[in-house]
Amino acid sequence: MVGTQALGCHLDAIPAEFSCNKRCLSFESTGFCAVCKCAHISRADGQQHSKEFEAISVLRKVPVLREGSFILNESVAILLYLTRKYSTSIYWYPPDMHIRASIDEYMAWQHEGIHIIMEKILWTKLLIPMITGQEVPKERMDDILKQVQTKIQLFCDHFLKDKPFITGEIICVADLMAAVEMMQPVGANYNIFLGKPKLNAWRLRVEKTIGSRLFQEAHEKLLKINKWDPSVLKPSVKEKILNMMQSITE
Amino acid sequence: MVGTQALGCHLDAIPAEFSCNKRCLSFESTGFCAVCKCAHISRADGQQHSKEFEAISVLRKVPVLREGSFILNESVAILLYLTRKYSTSIYWYPPDMHIRASIDEYMAWQHEGIHIIMEKILWTKLLIPMITGQEVPKERMDDILKQVQTKIQLFCDHFLKDKPFITGEIICVADLMAAVEMMQPVGANYNIFLGKPKLNAWRLRVEKTIGSRLFQEAHEKLLKINKWDPSVLKPSVKEKILNMMQSITE
Repeated sequence: MVGTQALGCHLDAIPAEFSCNKRCLSFESTGFCAVCKCAHISRADGQQHSKEFEAISVLRKVPVLREGSFILNESVAILLYLTRKYSTSIYWYPPDMHIRASIDEYMAWQHEGIHIIMEKILWTKLLIPMITGQEVPKERMDDILKQVQTKIQLFCDHFLKDKPFITGEIICVADLMAAVEMMQPVGANYNIFLGKPKLNAWRLRVEKTIGSRLFQEAHEKLLKINKWDPSVLKPSVKEKILNMMQSITE
Repeated sequence: MVGTQALGCHLDAIPAEFSCNKRCLSFESTGFCAVCKCAHISRADGQQHSKEFEAISVLRKVPVLREGSFILNESVAILLYLTRKYSTSIYWYPPDMHIRASIDEYMAWQHEGIHIIMEKILWTKLLIPMITGQEVPKERMDDILKQVQTKIQLFCDHFLKDKPFITGEIICVADLMAAVEMMQPVGANYNIFLGKPKLNAWRLRVEKTIGSRLFQEAHEKLLKINKWDPSVLKPSVKEKILNMMQSITE
């Protein structure tokens, strides 16, 4: 079972079904789904800034996995840990030296290459206006959107090229990570896949491979985030978010 | 042999000696040394912005490893690839599930947690003044130095704690990555280890374990970077660096 516990932003149990049956995978209740949901939830409500969450994770990052006294931060580390724990590495993180290196390359590059800018769009186009009531200046938005296009082009030119998936014919953890990150702007009604048939075809392949129902479920909270009521934020959490916003928009 | 070729910023051959002899390691000509040297060299002279380098790496990141037609970017991916290729994973990246997860956690966290801010100090305190002739405004510098202290504290509280190394009694690739990153400000005459006995003792343990001569050799270029002559920069490369600086200092 994967539990999104009271805090709503950490994984407190390990999925029972993270199994690999050749290419036929059970994605129900996988870490993938929980990792996505937890990340999206906590980024919006800022619960990672709470004292309760700090007691679990000094780093205050989401998602975080807790398994008894073992605490593990960082989506990349959590996904790799789950593939090892449930012996699905052969599929999700194949042992071939060059394939594994290419996955590591994407997983390392995406932090600065994809993650930061995708998250920035969600905040600048949607969450900052929702929380502060003010739009981010157009000049700053244009600059951010230009950076997104550059990064997406690099992803297509270097990682995806003309292959069905990042490492070739079969999906891997890097495809999951990439698809999740690129869905973030969609939550802010900015669809980066529009006008990019190759990239969109890849995203659809990822969705089809893991199953549309699971993909939609994983992004359900994100795609309804514009209905979220920011007035529920505690004043202390709101203040921390406002400070963070300053660094995003400056 | 590790070659830092004409471009001075990519690894064009694989080290012959990346061997593990229980805990007695041969570090001569390891990927570690070459990765450090290449990274420091190219960051200063901006050669990753050249057409020649783009032909090797679309991502324009350093270091990059080339092995025939196989191109691999990202220090994390390169180091893990080298441990697998030279069968030293058992030492540098131990197979124990929880230890490996902790290493992955650091390797993922350090991109945004350590790398960006350490590189920023090198640029703002030394390289920007050298290239532009102008100091970065004091208020901006104070803000950057405050961020550094926060990140170092997180490293000490969450990753190092009271252990000799990040995962416990034995050094691993995460210690190498961390030590290299934290040396960058030292190149700008800003020693982050001063006044931090626990952190400094850890750094000395890393240096002692891999051998002082190799550690010094790996950082030789970095520690002499204040003698570098920025007038050798090509105008086109200088322009690209100036654009990059704007995003660092704003």
